[in-house]
Amino acid sequence: MARVFNFGAGPATLPEAVLTEAQRELLDFGGTGMSIIESSHRGKAYSAVHEEAVANYRQLLGLSAEYAVIFVAGGASMQFAMVPLNLLGEGHTADYVHTGAWAGKAIKEAKRVGAVHIAADTSEAVPARIPTPADLDLTPGAAYVHLTSNETIAGSQWKGFPDTDAPLVADMSSDILSRPFDVERFALIYAGAQKNLGPSGIALVVLRRDLAERASGSLPAMLRYATYVEHDSLYNTPPTFSIYLMMLYSRWTLKEGLAALHARNVEKAARLYAAIDGSDFYTGTVAKECRSDMNVTFRLPSDELEALFMREADAQGLTGLKGHRSVGGLRASLYNAFPSAGVDALVSFMKAFESRRG
Amino acid sequence: MARVFNFGAGPATLPEAVLTEAQRELLDFGGTGMSIIESSHRGKAYSAVHEEAVANYRQLLGLSAEYAVIFVAGGASMQFAMVPLNLLGEGHTADYVHTGAWAGKAIKEAKRVGAVHIAADTSEAVPARIPTPADLDLTPGAAYVHLTSNETIAGSQWKGFPDTDAPLVADMSSDILSRPFDVERFALIYAGAQKNLGPSGIALVVLRRDLAERASGSLPAMLRYATYVEHDSLYNTPPTFSIYLMMLYSRWTLKEGLAALHARNVEKAARLYAAIDGSDFYTGTVAKECRSDMNVTFRLPSDELEALFMREADAQGLTGLKGHRSVGGLRASLYNAFPSAGVDALVSFMKAFESRRG
Repeated sequence: MARVFNFGAGPATLPEAVLTEAQRELLDFGGTGMSIIESSHRGKAYSAVHEEAVANYRQLLGLSAEYAVIFVAGGASMQFAMVPLNLLGEGHTADYVHTGAWAGKAIKEAKRVGAVHIAADTSEAVPARIPTPADLDLTPGAAYVHLTSNETIAGSQWKGFPDTDAPLVADMSSDILSRPFDVERFALIYAGAQKNLGPSGIALVVLRRDLAERASGSLPAMLRYATYVEHDSLYNTPPTFSIYLMMLYSRWTLKEGLAALHARNVEKAARLYAAIDGSDFYTGTVAKECRSDMNVTFRLPSDELEALFMREADAQGLTGLKGHRSVGGLRASLYNAFPSAGVDALVSFMKAFESRRG
Repeated sequence: MARVFNFGAGPATLPEAVLTEAQRELLDFGGTGMSIIESSHRGKAYSAVHEEAVANYRQLLGLSAEYAVIFVAGGASMQFAMVPLNLLGEGHTADYVHTGAWAGKAIKEAKRVGAVHIAADTSEAVPARIPTPADLDLTPGAAYVHLTSNETIAGSQWKGFPDTDAPLVADMSSDILSRPFDVERFALIYAGAQKNLGPSGIALVVLRRDLAERASGSLPAMLRYATYVEHDSLYNTPPTFSIYLMMLYSRWTLKEGLAALHARNVEKAARLYAAIDGSDFYTGTVAKECRSDMNVTFRLPSDELEALFMREADAQGLTGLKGHRSVGGLRASLYNAFPSAGVDALVSFMKAFESRRG
């Protein structure tokens, strides 16, 4: 069977070249006579993979020596806890910007650890939107300010980031490496890998080295950023195959180029938003200036038509279009690896569906 | 290049059939038109994989409904923290049996959380050994008793397990599913997957459901066993591809049969120990009654000869024989998937090396 167009929000489409390469060398990595899955995390073969992954991210993000790049098992949900456990000392307050479901989860975990102030709340806004930097009510001397750069479920995205006195922390799970941005404005960035980076179950964390020292001595080793920074993510056995896939994906990202990918992402999303806006049958759910280039959310006139749309689309190889179970509707995720031809196919299908059912 | 014999302690040799199957369907899983890596963790294709993995472990371990099987990102090192965070309430004491490097790491993390009593300590014994059940000094009313069923670095292994009043917890990372045992004696078992189960970066945890309720409400969601039990390890996006590989490996384990694998493991290890004991050139490092069937540790007369042995063995496709950096010497790991022919090859090489260099 040919590859379908997978609009899923994550785990998501990977570049076919990454999968083909992984498949080719799955039983014999680089002439070692074994799979990279079987290779020691302290051996030469894996070490080269690990180092290349780190180097590629450093280059893609333009990181200075002040920043460390680490890999932590467990995805963004584990980071929702690790961020406050490491950075939110007793007697301090962390500012969180509440923009939707994912920010909400980060807030819930932070509240288990310490004092949280909601600097702005657009989580219930209809249409969905992101606050402007001027909307933020920030705590003087806050431990940090946390935002969610792209709300995967709502389909909203920060288009510019606030200047903050406190260290700025961002969950960039669903739009990291989709566009160039000024990393130096951030103290810590984390991203579950399963959208623009690789497989699920692992997070990329980029942090200013001085922040890794904030945690109390009683925090378990595997929950301390310092453990990962000091041991280059090799204190224990890391998820080696996941990091290998991330390395292959980062190599592809470098080859495509961040500026070119960004241009392509903007163009892909614009084409789909134009199809939505050009029809009375489809309705976008996000304020135009806050629309995500990664997750395009829209509705049809009824739940029945949405269910029918998904069934018929699926039969044509357009899969994963169901909106998150918490909000309903439709969602087309267009991450870096999602091919432009898939947008063409969806737009054509939308027109045909509307003319049949509209 | 042909596959080498990989004696590495973990990440370790996988069944070739597992790798071949993963390779075959890497770009198109079960006719879905996408890789299982790209497949939604809430979709039908992945759900079937997830459910089969759980069902296979339930069958292999003979679990009653009282027990849950969960997957936690992060390996055994994360469990060193999660066990006390969930089970060691304030004002209680946990008993730990200190048998070597891995028990030591578990103890270090538990001490960060609460009160720890060392029920026995053989960690410095020469030759290495495991305490007998009668040696244990257990705390009345202990929160739990923790042991390490197999010390991967020392090469020692519990041959029978103690009866304890308190819930018995075991790190079985390096010998789970290598032999039949009475699971009902344990309250919680955890195992990093990279020896007998699959890739690195994930742990299998088997626990009595009532224990999942012990944790305090302030523990972050991703660190609470209850989160995994209640959501069948799908509260957040799990490491889907890792669980897929574990499913394939568990399917292979079921096909081979636990009793047959155990017999093969005993026979493989006995053959290698016989070669060690039949020579004055090689010396075992573990008391005979405590020798591990998984990790066979031995020394040569000098560090120089050990280095030469490893170099020459490696050149003949016998790799990963270096002992852990903390103890030196040689170590041959003979997990379930390690082929019997590899033991033949090592024994032949040992004889030839001794006759050249002895």
